[in-house]
Amino acid sequence: THVRAAPLRPALSGLSATRRGLPKEKMTDNGMMSRAKVLTIDNMNPTVKKVEYAVRGPIVQRAVELERELSEGMKKPFAEVIKANIGDAHAMGQQPITFFRQVLALCSYPELLSDSTFPEDAKSRACRILQSCGGFSMGSYSASQGIDSVRQDVAQYIQRRDGGVPCDPDNIYLTTGASDGIVTMLKLLVCGEGTSRAGVMISIPQYPLYSAALAELGAVQINYYLNEEACWSLDIPELQRAVNEARRYCNPRALCIINPGNPTGQVQSRQCIEDVIRFAAKERLFLMADEVYQDNVYADGCQFHSFKKVLFEMGPEYSETVELASFHSTSKCYMGECGFRGGYMEIINMDDDVKAQLTKLVSVRLCPPVPGQALMDLVVNPPQPGEPSYNNFIKERTATLSALAEKAKLTEQVLNTVEGISCNPVQGAMYSFPRITIPEKAVQEAAEKGQAPDMFYCMKMLEETGICLVPGSGFGQKDGTYHFRMTILPPKDKLQILLNNVKEFHQRFTLQYS
Amino acid sequence: THVRAAPLRPALSGLSATRRGLPKEKMTDNGMMSRAKVLTIDNMNPTVKKVEYAVRGPIVQRAVELERELSEGMKKPFAEVIKANIGDAHAMGQQPITFFRQVLALCSYPELLSDSTFPEDAKSRACRILQSCGGFSMGSYSASQGIDSVRQDVAQYIQRRDGGVPCDPDNIYLTTGASDGIVTMLKLLVCGEGTSRAGVMISIPQYPLYSAALAELGAVQINYYLNEEACWSLDIPELQRAVNEARRYCNPRALCIINPGNPTGQVQSRQCIEDVIRFAAKERLFLMADEVYQDNVYADGCQFHSFKKVLFEMGPEYSETVELASFHSTSKCYMGECGFRGGYMEIINMDDDVKAQLTKLVSVRLCPPVPGQALMDLVVNPPQPGEPSYNNFIKERTATLSALAEKAKLTEQVLNTVEGISCNPVQGAMYSFPRITIPEKAVQEAAEKGQAPDMFYCMKMLEETGICLVPGSGFGQKDGTYHFRMTILPPKDKLQILLNNVKEFHQRFTLQYS
Repeated sequence: THVRAAPLRPALSGLSATRRGLPKEKMTDNGMMSRAKVLTIDNMNPTVKKVEYAVRGPIVQRAVELERELSEGMKKPFAEVIKANIGDAHAMGQQPITFFRQVLALCSYPELLSDSTFPEDAKSRACRILQSCGGFSMGSYSASQGIDSVRQDVAQYIQRRDGGVPCDPDNIYLTTGASDGIVTMLKLLVCGEGTSRAGVMISIPQYPLYSAALAELGAVQINYYLNEEACWSLDIPELQRAVNEARRYCNPRALCIINPGNPTGQVQSRQCIEDVIRFAAKERLFLMADEVYQDNVYADGCQFHSFKKVLFEMGPEYSETVELASFHSTSKCYMGECGFRGGYMEIINMDDDVKAQLTKLVSVRLCPPVPGQALMDLVVNPPQPGEPSYNNFIKERTATLSALAEKAKLTEQVLNTVEGISCNPVQGAMYSFPRITIPEKAVQEAAEKGQAPDMFYCMKMLEETGICLVPGSGFGQKDGTYHFRMTILPPKDKLQILLNNVKEFHQRFTLQYS
Repeated sequence: THVRAAPLRPALSGLSATRRGLPKEKMTDNGMMSRAKVLTIDNMNPTVKKVEYAVRGPIVQRAVELERELSEGMKKPFAEVIKANIGDAHAMGQQPITFFRQVLALCSYPELLSDSTFPEDAKSRACRILQSCGGFSMGSYSASQGIDSVRQDVAQYIQRRDGGVPCDPDNIYLTTGASDGIVTMLKLLVCGEGTSRAGVMISIPQYPLYSAALAELGAVQINYYLNEEACWSLDIPELQRAVNEARRYCNPRALCIINPGNPTGQVQSRQCIEDVIRFAAKERLFLMADEVYQDNVYADGCQFHSFKKVLFEMGPEYSETVELASFHSTSKCYMGECGFRGGYMEIINMDDDVKAQLTKLVSVRLCPPVPGQALMDLVVNPPQPGEPSYNNFIKERTATLSALAEKAKLTEQVLNTVEGISCNPVQGAMYSFPRITIPEKAVQEAAEKGQAPDMFYCMKMLEETGICLVPGSGFGQKDGTYHFRMTILPPKDKLQILLNNVKEFHQRFTLQYS
């Protein structure tokens, strides 16, 4: 069930498979005493078994198999597998920002600092980063919280972004992608047993990192449902319902928000954010704001508001009390640099003793990857007007963001022409999460296979069209509703074809099971 | 207690400090209602509080403070802080391998592929890596287990290293440094409550990642003591004692070995490894072999033997049954590329269902950093004879390893000239871990300060000489014995001065407290 490379020794893995489930000692075919495994599925960590992560689940494993089969010349009803399952921009052809990569090359191989083909601003940026690295090398460990100068640049970026709301570099922790920061924060929060076990509120649909981390940490997942009928809005009465019910069986401690939404693509209004903050204050919840799509806002009239900014605009009653962690990343927005695993978190109003524990905890893993830290630095401190790389940087950034905006609109439009598919506007982020009608006969056939109906649907689409989507059940959805998540990342011409193929598949599927 | 950058807003952190320990609601100085924190030291995750990590503990925090004070012009009895606390080679002036950095620059900024100043072998290596990345970009996510072609190269490296013992790329998982792999494996193993709680055997002295991870995961740490009198040898009777005692209160499941040793620098004999494997088989323990220092062997007559190789040489009774995970990294050896957080683990004889769970678990974090994967690829597939970069690569590697060997010897020699310091040979790895005599009066003064005696000693050395070492108590040691860990990484002339300063400090300290 995992990605397979050409095995150098097929015999070995075959042998170990045959031994599964044997009692503690048994004679094998070749006459040797065999032992039961020390570590088995029955005695391994039970919380790990509960972890699920649909974005890289069985459907993606099948997609990888299909790619291999295609490359081995096997005949399929499609020429290529299109992975629209994950927000992996460069894999879909998005080009990296030239300036960022120039600086990374200079940092990797500082001999290039004397190469006249590199622009001066790239060189000065690289020097500044390297001067903050021990021995002028990205190969040195950084401080566990991240390189000082990078955290200072992050703080200044946040201050600019939030119209001057102050930001202390001491509150910035660089991370190995946003996922790392989120899991670290959740780790601090879990505690208790039985009805006092820590509970964490997450949206449904959600990004499955949250459910996976909560399962692994043994915390209680408290679901609040986004309102699909109102463009996936977050309604306070639903938050209230969720927390009231949860208080009967656990200790709700934190509220996680993803804005712009993943997988749902909505962008929260300033008012909504204010209401959420009031709710968190009233219910005494630690706020976690996943803001990795902060540059990915496409819809007219929509604007990104950071939780930090709104919190501080609400005055000291809130800004000096509500505990907040917000997360950002190099992986999304216009950069799409997922592979570098760069990110940061800002923590607000955290108790000083807890913060010391956080600093200690991150020190065990030594430091986030330095190339990712360097990249994060460039994201928060890009070329400025007057610098040689400024114009090209703006051109590249604008081109990427405009293309995404166009593809967001296209996706919504085409999907809404299909009977049995209805798609909210993709206001932001990188995904559409349309609702699909699945005929009763298909629901039954899925049940016979032990599959969720939308998994059955997506698996069939993959086999017939080569399109890899993630079923809504992997993110959570209201009972009886079905969805899939599809990225808007493929190049426009490819996206057009993909959307048409989805359309035709849906029509065929509906016909077949009606 | 954390690394401080210049605060943009000192007032805020001051305010939050004054609010600590207040009851749930209270009027503050400025007349507002204040709330107790949601997340406090008393209600946070208790397992996180138990985590300790001496390598980046209070002494390093003080070292960072001293550096800042020096840079601000404050007078100290020394001109610079020398951090001999951590195996951070580049920070100590070790130069990166040119070929590795050329390939990383090419991968970061592929425009350079048309630059004629880069050697052809660096270009072809970069192309091979980029062709395995989605969209020819290191900015794409890789497979969660790691890039296929890199795992194939790792498998071939292991096969060569182990004299042909087969290695299946399917058993290779690329990781975010070795730490990540070790923690992931430990995560699979923990389970149970009370006397059936999982126990993991670790050496004392140990590398504190192990104790930190076990504390966080809530597993039982089972100590076995290395024999300092016999050059930190691992004696089977001691393993037996430890496991027998542990069976009374927990469920011993795994045995961790660090070879070459950290912090103790010993290199295990082939015989010893064989005995350990027999012991693990007999006691039904999952073996974890931390082999990140596999190229760092200096002493005459010593040689690195991988657990994998010895296991397979012991015949199918062992090679087909004993479960083993071994770990490697880009951070040590001759590369010293810590900042890239590259690494891999190989798993042997793992149950197929558990392996599927492992693959699922690593997928939640998406993938290890791709630049670190690329670097791991170069380490396992360096320039070959006949390639343009081969001679220079060999020259650079040899120079680094010879210098380390020389410094290992120098360190042992100088420290052993000091009365009250006795140092085992540094056979391998990057550290000496000498035993120090601390006068009774100093032990008492430390007790009054609530410090371990060797923490008191190291803190005093730091304040007087600027030398930052880690006290033995951070790694564990026999009661009543005291040590420190010192890296052998500073350049030779600096190391000479450092050793003399340690010597003088020790003499002064001994005199003062006698």
